[in-house]
Amino acid sequence: MKNEINIGLLGFGVVGSGVAKILHEHRDDLSHKLGVPVKINKVLVKDVNKKRNTDLSADIFTTDLDEIIADPTIDLIVEVIGGTSEAKQAIERSLRSGKGVVTANKDVMAQSGLELLQLADENRCDLFYEASVGGGIPLIRTLEDGLASDRIHAITGIVNGTTNFILTKMKHEKKTYEEALQEATELGFAEADPSADVDGIDAARKMVILASLAFSTDVRMEDVFVRGMKEIRKGDLELADQFGYTIKMAGSAKKDEAGIEVAVEPVFVPNSHPLASVNNEFNAVYVYGDAVGETMFYGPGAGSLPTATSVTGDIVAACRNLLLGVNGKRLHAPQFKCKIKSDSQKYARYFHRISVKDEVGVLTRLSAVYSNHGASLATVIQHADRNNGGVDLIMITHEISRQQHLDIMNELQNTPEVIEVLSFYRVEGETR
Amino acid sequence: MKNEINIGLLGFGVVGSGVAKILHEHRDDLSHKLGVPVKINKVLVKDVNKKRNTDLSADIFTTDLDEIIADPTIDLIVEVIGGTSEAKQAIERSLRSGKGVVTANKDVMAQSGLELLQLADENRCDLFYEASVGGGIPLIRTLEDGLASDRIHAITGIVNGTTNFILTKMKHEKKTYEEALQEATELGFAEADPSADVDGIDAARKMVILASLAFSTDVRMEDVFVRGMKEIRKGDLELADQFGYTIKMAGSAKKDEAGIEVAVEPVFVPNSHPLASVNNEFNAVYVYGDAVGETMFYGPGAGSLPTATSVTGDIVAACRNLLLGVNGKRLHAPQFKCKIKSDSQKYARYFHRISVKDEVGVLTRLSAVYSNHGASLATVIQHADRNNGGVDLIMITHEISRQQHLDIMNELQNTPEVIEVLSFYRVEGETR
Repeated sequence: MKNEINIGLLGFGVVGSGVAKILHEHRDDLSHKLGVPVKINKVLVKDVNKKRNTDLSADIFTTDLDEIIADPTIDLIVEVIGGTSEAKQAIERSLRSGKGVVTANKDVMAQSGLELLQLADENRCDLFYEASVGGGIPLIRTLEDGLASDRIHAITGIVNGTTNFILTKMKHEKKTYEEALQEATELGFAEADPSADVDGIDAARKMVILASLAFSTDVRMEDVFVRGMKEIRKGDLELADQFGYTIKMAGSAKKDEAGIEVAVEPVFVPNSHPLASVNNEFNAVYVYGDAVGETMFYGPGAGSLPTATSVTGDIVAACRNLLLGVNGKRLHAPQFKCKIKSDSQKYARYFHRISVKDEVGVLTRLSAVYSNHGASLATVIQHADRNNGGVDLIMITHEISRQQHLDIMNELQNTPEVIEVLSFYRVEGETR
Repeated sequence: MKNEINIGLLGFGVVGSGVAKILHEHRDDLSHKLGVPVKINKVLVKDVNKKRNTDLSADIFTTDLDEIIADPTIDLIVEVIGGTSEAKQAIERSLRSGKGVVTANKDVMAQSGLELLQLADENRCDLFYEASVGGGIPLIRTLEDGLASDRIHAITGIVNGTTNFILTKMKHEKKTYEEALQEATELGFAEADPSADVDGIDAARKMVILASLAFSTDVRMEDVFVRGMKEIRKGDLELADQFGYTIKMAGSAKKDEAGIEVAVEPVFVPNSHPLASVNNEFNAVYVYGDAVGETMFYGPGAGSLPTATSVTGDIVAACRNLLLGVNGKRLHAPQFKCKIKSDSQKYARYFHRISVKDEVGVLTRLSAVYSNHGASLATVIQHADRNNGGVDLIMITHEISRQQHLDIMNELQNTPEVIEVLSFYRVEGETR
């Protein structure tokens, strides 16, 4: 039996320094839990001379990955570099050298998760990735273990802290998108280039990871329908509120007999639904299982220490397995082939905001477009605000397929009375 | 390596039949996850001739525990009998015979959890008990694994579905306590004798289990301050609402340098706090960690299939350990001695509803009682309703110690202007 566990930490940024802090400050608790101490032996950085506020000794910092991979005393690699190619290579090399890996890297796990998990299996190593989704919320573990015996049929939630922070500030403090984004950047909730967050790519990666795990299949990025938050038009948030909804950037993954659908997009959530009150950088994910019914997991979706908590939780799990000699013993072959639904198999209610000419008969003409495509309307309202020389019509449909929605959009754009389709949203979180 | 796992199921009531159903309906998924099939080999019941709606063969039902314990083909015992002495004995005998145990029994785990976990360790067996707290919510696992690296300092939440169902019906449908209790009984959310639920004993047991695990210590039932929901007076729910609060039966466990406090009681929760919107039989538990910050876990707190999901989740975990040969390898010695705070070390805001004589100077007289005990008041309102020939005074304090609150209560009861102290509540869920 080992008498200590040695860690090679790759990266010492926001998350990496948080991991070092937790391992240091909670060292007695961790020693008690595992029976042996856990120690960071080497840290990979770009510049060893950079000033760092840390308890770690300066001589364990290195710029040489080979030195870490080749070190036989290192049992476990913690990858918190971020990005894709360099991080993926580092993970592969670690696994091939027989070292287990804990990673917070959603980019790599969304793109190559299954491949890396199988590489881990082949090398009898663990590969844990709790921190790749939901910051401090133990979601992966809940899907893998807590709900292991159930059959999950849907996951819906807010999985990107940056966009949720921006939308919260826009709604509650009436900030513009630009002002809210700037505040997010200043607080460290948005990166210098926020496009992966605001375009929905970051959330899509997380949904790929969650859906693959929950449905025991192999969902790919190209399977996810993604719309960014830039599609939200001025006035939409206020309009949503008037109708009793809040706009949230939501991820959803659903499975039924017809197949799987995965989407990330701004949606209308009824104000009475708890997701509507998940504010700022917080994440919340609903998991629906056949047997368990509805469960929800809520917590900080970003930040140094919350994310580092998930990483160190994985470190504890990996250490336990190493100490028991049962690392690399999970089965990672997906049970099902991934069958993605066509647009005509995806059902939802839709909210359409259409700028139309202010003339007699326009409502009749537009209603006909909906009925032509077999869509019945739950709500039709001519909105007081005028713009572009026209008036706004709000149409909320009953449940229709995405194909019907697209066909209607298409016909509306070719209808002379329509000046512009201003915006549209799927309605999420309603009980069918 | 074993080529199948055989289970001895003790009890075939609401939860037991749910476990059988899930193991049967999800058998392919479970086989895939574990690599071997999981089978119920024997079922302990009181009456083998009772008609049962099940896919299990009639000849595996038995009334003889000895037969199950002595069966060398049985690997794992699932205890869902409930109650205390018979269940505890069955768990002990199973562990002593080298069989791992999965239990849903909060009574036994609250009373003898540490003792049984240590017995499991001695016999190199697993003892899992996820279903003892929070129905379908994987809380135990989250505290043991997901947040393993963090230091938890508080747990607050709704851990009893019965009382939450009753309070929801009383608040939202204006039912009386008796009507709401009857509905809960009819729906199977309350037992024939509901006293353990409504008196707070059931919730106290769950808080003992959660606090012991979260704080790595040994909390006992006698350490928990318990007030039942019968202390809620007519008019209190409406009164709470007028002040922006909802009354919930809440469990709370907190730890700081001074020690630990654990309580179950009806409390005032601000309507803006998400706990106030947790309705019906649902449970929700907030966990606060030094590093992770605020997390919340929500789901069905009762019901056959949700609870059975937690039991079968534990079965999967126990099977994995059996297949890997690492059962009974968790360390169950508490890290800390349990130091319970005195009443003068427990701080909170309090809501007092006092019936006083309708005469000049009574407010001055009563305010003096509070200031005599060093308590400052946040809100003082003379409530319009008259009763018992007096008027109601509402006093909401700033943060005071429980000792101050008790001293004030005591002096109020001996103040001639006071007709009766009608009710009092701790205020929970506010940011300090």
